[in-house]
Amino acid sequence: MSSYLVDGLGTTDALAAVFSDESVLQVMLDVESALARVQAGLGIIPQTAATAIAAAARADHFDAASLAREGRASATPIVPLVAALRARVASVDAGAASFVHWGVTSQDISDTALVMLLKRTAPILEGTQTRLAQTLRAMSEAHAGTRMTGRTLLQPATPITFGLKVATWYAGIRRAWRQLEEAIAAAAVIQCAGPAGTLAALGDKGVPVRWALADALALHDGPPWHTERGRLAVVACGCGILTGALGKMARDVSLLMQYEVGEVAEPGGGSSSMPHKRNPAGSARALAAATRTPGLVAAYLTGMVQEHERAAGGWQAEWPTLAALIQTTGAASEAMADVTEGLTVDRERMRQNMEGVGEPMFISLGAADALRRELLDTL
Amino acid sequence: MSSYLVDGLGTTDALAAVFSDESVLQVMLDVESALARVQAGLGIIPQTAATAIAAAARADHFDAASLAREGRASATPIVPLVAALRARVASVDAGAASFVHWGVTSQDISDTALVMLLKRTAPILEGTQTRLAQTLRAMSEAHAGTRMTGRTLLQPATPITFGLKVATWYAGIRRAWRQLEEAIAAAAVIQCAGPAGTLAALGDKGVPVRWALADALALHDGPPWHTERGRLAVVACGCGILTGALGKMARDVSLLMQYEVGEVAEPGGGSSSMPHKRNPAGSARALAAATRTPGLVAAYLTGMVQEHERAAGGWQAEWPTLAALIQTTGAASEAMADVTEGLTVDRERMRQNMEGVGEPMFISLGAADALRRELLDTL
Amino acid sequence: MSSYLVDGLGTTDALAAVFSDESVLQVMLDVESALARVQAGLGIIPQTAATAIAAAARADHFDAASLAREGRASATPIVPLVAALRARVASVDAGAASFVHWGVTSQDISDTALVMLLKRTAPILEGTQTRLAQTLRAMSEAHAGTRMTGRTLLQPATPITFGLKVATWYAGIRRAWRQLEEAIAAAAVIQCAGPAGTLAALGDKGVPVRWALADALALHDGPPWHTERGRLAVVACGCGILTGALGKMARDVSLLMQYEVGEVAEPGGGSSSMPHKRNPAGSARALAAATRTPGLVAAYLTGMVQEHERAAGGWQAEWPTLAALIQTTGAASEAMADVTEGLTVDRERMRQNMEGVGEPMFISLGAADALRRELLDTL
Amino acid sequence: MSSYLVDGLGTTDALAAVFSDESVLQVMLDVESALARVQAGLGIIPQTAATAIAAAARADHFDAASLAREGRASATPIVPLVAALRARVASVDAGAASFVHWGVTSQDISDTALVMLLKRTAPILEGTQTRLAQTLRAMSEAHAGTRMTGRTLLQPATPITFGLKVATWYAGIRRAWRQLEEAIAAAAVIQCAGPAGTLAALGDKGVPVRWALADALALHDGPPWHTERGRLAVVACGCGILTGALGKMARDVSLLMQYEVGEVAEPGGGSSSMPHKRNPAGSARALAAATRTPGLVAAYLTGMVQEHERAAGGWQAEWPTLAALIQTTGAASEAMADVTEGLTVDRERMRQNMEGVGEPMFISLGAADALRRELLDTL
Repeated sequence: MSSYLVDGLGTTDALAAVFSDESVLQVMLDVESALARVQAGLGIIPQTAATAIAAAARADHFDAASLAREGRASATPIVPLVAALRARVASVDAGAASFVHWGVTSQDISDTALVMLLKRTAPILEGTQTRLAQTLRAMSEAHAGTRMTGRTLLQPATPITFGLKVATWYAGIRRAWRQLEEAIAAAAVIQCAGPAGTLAALGDKGVPVRWALADALALHDGPPWHTERGRLAVVACGCGILTGALGKMARDVSLLMQYEVGEVAEPGGGSSSMPHKRNPAGSARALAAATRTPGLVAAYLTGMVQEHERAAGGWQAEWPTLAALIQTTGAASEAMADVTEGLTVDRERMRQNMEGVGEPMFISLGAADALRRELLDTL
Repeated sequence: MSSYLVDGLGTTDALAAVFSDESVLQVMLDVESALARVQAGLGIIPQTAATAIAAAARADHFDAASLAREGRASATPIVPLVAALRARVASVDAGAASFVHWGVTSQDISDTALVMLLKRTAPILEGTQTRLAQTLRAMSEAHAGTRMTGRTLLQPATPITFGLKVATWYAGIRRAWRQLEEAIAAAAVIQCAGPAGTLAALGDKGVPVRWALADALALHDGPPWHTERGRLAVVACGCGILTGALGKMARDVSLLMQYEVGEVAEPGGGSSSMPHKRNPAGSARALAAATRTPGLVAAYLTGMVQEHERAAGGWQAEWPTLAALIQTTGAASEAMADVTEGLTVDRERMRQNMEGVGEPMFISLGAADALRRELLDTL
Repeated sequence: MSSYLVDGLGTTDALAAVFSDESVLQVMLDVESALARVQAGLGIIPQTAATAIAAAARADHFDAASLAREGRASATPIVPLVAALRARVASVDAGAASFVHWGVTSQDISDTALVMLLKRTAPILEGTQTRLAQTLRAMSEAHAGTRMTGRTLLQPATPITFGLKVATWYAGIRRAWRQLEEAIAAAAVIQCAGPAGTLAALGDKGVPVRWALADALALHDGPPWHTERGRLAVVACGCGILTGALGKMARDVSLLMQYEVGEVAEPGGGSSSMPHKRNPAGSARALAAATRTPGLVAAYLTGMVQEHERAAGGWQAEWPTLAALIQTTGAASEAMADVTEGLTVDRERMRQNMEGVGEPMFISLGAADALRRELLDTL
Repeated sequence: MSSYLVDGLGTTDALAAVFSDESVLQVMLDVESALARVQAGLGIIPQTAATAIAAAARADHFDAASLAREGRASATPIVPLVAALRARVASVDAGAASFVHWGVTSQDISDTALVMLLKRTAPILEGTQTRLAQTLRAMSEAHAGTRMTGRTLLQPATPITFGLKVATWYAGIRRAWRQLEEAIAAAAVIQCAGPAGTLAALGDKGVPVRWALADALALHDGPPWHTERGRLAVVACGCGILTGALGKMARDVSLLMQYEVGEVAEPGGGSSSMPHKRNPAGSARALAAATRTPGLVAAYLTGMVQEHERAAGGWQAEWPTLAALIQTTGAASEAMADVTEGLTVDRERMRQNMEGVGEPMFISLGAADALRRELLDTL
């Protein structure tokens, strides 16, 4: 668990809200509710039961922290959640209680809820990424002819243009985001397969229930994936790669912002005691994210080695890991979008630094611009 | 950020409380307050200022989430916290406000708060570890002569005793805990060095302030460590090693609990639908922890490569990483302490399984017991 | 560096050969040779120079270990390699020596060589994966009706079929391999951009040289990616995901092989001293690979945060990391292909274990088979 | 497996030699030979057998690569090694062959060989670390009064002294090395426990054999640790922490070497085409090491979760991981020792940069020097 003061730099308000107790709880209840509705529609459970379940399935009826604590006894919060939901339904319609969670297993609920939560993060990330991409493209165009020092191993090399540098940032970030976006979409597959993944408890109605549930929840239909976590692994890796690309840009910005280089500056006022100082605070936030994500990806991948039809430990490691990955990725995206929108570019300083190297300045602006345009064509 | 439903298995209530916004905020304020008190004592700031600061430095006067959000602009929540504290002090004693945070830097506060929080987790972990150690020792003694199948690569080998197996768990966990305990104690070093780590702003009073502050906060005195993070790295690694040792035990318990093996059983009732089923829920929780910690350790180590006198990204990655490491370690400890206290051991089944292998059963009980006792002598 | 005894389990002979000094050196020389040929074709350097360079560019003319050692002074072995190649060319055609490595930078050579080496591993991996996929499909079909215990958290749940379990393995491995195969193909992009990535030294001939060189080396054309490593990151992650999927299968096989379960057995004779013992040696090899790859993926992702136009440290970390990732992935693939081809399946034991649970055995063979066929439809 | 061109930057010649096939093979044979000698001394096997075994146990009698390949069938190269050694002994003394590897298990040999190899790396690392420490201390003393810009978040802060900065590097590296040195020494524990870790096959002679073998091989005596890997985990972590500390110094050097900063310069001539350019090649090598080690540490920790009395996968992951950790640590140490010995420090440029900030330069040289001396007192 982490609080705002512990992890406020590593999330955004919108993403933190998606993974809040209230949001997570409501999504879990939405899955139970939709399941009952779908099963009633297929004549598996009474319509009155579905109605009672839907009425009961509201997050404010339950205490998320208590459910999570009780969940330690069964290694999943779904077991106490189902018990609590049954109790609440029973208090209104005793007969309906037994139809709660009918024919499914706890991981059906938690996995479906997880991909629904991930899906909700996609438009949030997309908004930030679109903002970032548009600003980077415009900046690259505006500086197509702005010459500056190229730097290899942190030493001056032949000149580049700032437009080309920005286009390199754009290409890396853009491809990584498109891949992550596709990965989240592809991972949004219903999990509905019952205790050992055979849909046994629903007889010949199993696959139809799954179809209808996927439809009701706007998820892809598909066979069980209780211990086949490859699609979520692609999401995890996608976060790692995107954060790496954002971190590369952040590293460059923080280096270009150095007092002795002074070629760009992040927005934000200087410190009161040191007016010359504009800290690369946004870049630092993105770099912190890029420091954290590789290990989180490793944790996800480690958890893929899951036992038989449901793992003892592997999937339980996934929720905090994926939640942290998505949030750090969103934090890095937000940070660099803000940095880019407010970035001050000092053409004159770029020129001075470049000329200060005192070397013949080999650059073909035509070639550099061709490369720049190729990079902007990414995706 | 993670909520209870996202990460309830990966923490304990006591450790979650240590890293709650209220707790973190109060510790940060305690450092500011102690600093003022110490500086007043040394005649650096007026006593009245210290009194006003102490009165203002109460967590319930501030909104942690807001401070954390504002902190994104400066890559640290301390900057808005100091501003808010100054404002509150000013509303009571205008002259005192400028003495808030006198001569120090934001990382002095955040680092000192961090090691104070870590120190608070030590007795919590110690309680659980002591419980676990005592139960394991007693179990090892009780089963000094309980023969069972030894298993290598998950295949039967020559017999062992259950007491020897338990002693191996004990040895690994015990040594790792002692090392972590020492690491937390060793890391509890005051950070008080001012903007670039030279104590420049306090003139010749710098080191005396540091001494007194360390004393007031019951921390070790020591030179600055703004970008020298080795002691905290030992804490991070210690969490990874201890969780690995707990995960080894959890793996064994989950394997011994298999229906086809049936030699031990975790406490906890069976499922209502399947009375034969007692899930290794505690072991699953410890295994989930052991799945997560290696990547978190990697994140910490990656962040060690910090720039100059204060890093842009490296230390910002530390808070959520260390908080997660300590909490997963505590969760795994609690889980295995509970598992051990309630573990059912089926001597008869151990005998049957061993004899069922149909091999000559080579074991010297004397030798096995000597090894067992050697292992219990760990630390 | 690792020798056969240190890392023999973590590679295959064919993949070890790809990354041997002789192979790596020859690929690097092939790039230099093709560059000269292409530049001669475009009239940039004399044809005689290209001929002399091609004649000199043979691995057995150079000492890889010495070049690698000398490369420490410049953080790349390409610098001493170019010097050595120039010297050798000069000994035959003094005028030609200066045309070695004309207009390019060391990372152009090393990156191009790297993706060529990766591309060579694809058919090796493909052969193993095809063998594994075919065997898994056939096994799944043959056991479409073979009922066995389903197991959740290592405890008996409702029955499954072995065909369904195998299909789950198939689906995870198949998708992961297809993604890795695509990733390797997509990463095979020429690197030819000169010192700061602007193709400056080749004037208006830069892009045509790049086109022709890509064509000559059968690589994709594309803009520079000296510090934009996203495509290789997808390869690294793809190795991690595939190894995770193989590790999941290996975990299951090793568990099913337990003496007390006895439902499958890996090929291979028993130990001489313990005839009952058939170790899951292949699964152990795959599990060792799955233990290593998450951390290697993390290392790759960490290295993505590269400075400016060429990194100081980031890309230097890539070669051993990618070489280890591909080799461990190949080792796990080979191990599980061999395991699958020789796997003994004990239907009778599966039936006994299932019936031994003493529970009503809910399974709809029709539903299970429908799910099985869905899983086999993966990709 | 990795060759020189793949991983030459990530090792040193001396450390690569320790982990070469010849070295590893000889150490494994040395353990078998010492075991026989010790057992003969205790009257367990005939003296003639010990003599024959010792004569046969020479690395040049065997083909390491072949043994490693054959070892895939049993997930350890020790099985084919023992078979080959028996065959060789049999060709000389048929009766002696059965006394090869008497009463022990393959992991006894591999674990003992592993810690012997690690122990051999300690003096190599020590030599480099001593060189580095002495140079850093002298440099810190020489620059006790050299003022320079302090930099936080890569922006100018109040001044520091270069001596203080160097002392911070020293403190982090020194403590980390001392801890690693202790960890290697502490891990050098004999492994001699037989198939399931009970010493069963040696009757009442088991512990005496272990004592004598530990003595013969100059290792600590101790109970079995086949699946209790905590001491080696401390070594792995120690490598990660030391490399992190070296990486911090390397980051600083590479930043201070920037053309626009120009305060220090690594040794090494400039490039022929760009005389202004002195690349931070040594720092890049250390930074590459620091990029790789966190993931390698994660891999080691992941492997700690080992099954029962011998793991299927966990320990097999250790050899290449530990070998890579030690070698990258040695490479980073060597790189930074060389960097430090040849470092050019430009006092004048430091002064100019500091004054160029145009701020009042608050620094108490006395306080800074006190802190510097405290840091040099580390360990």
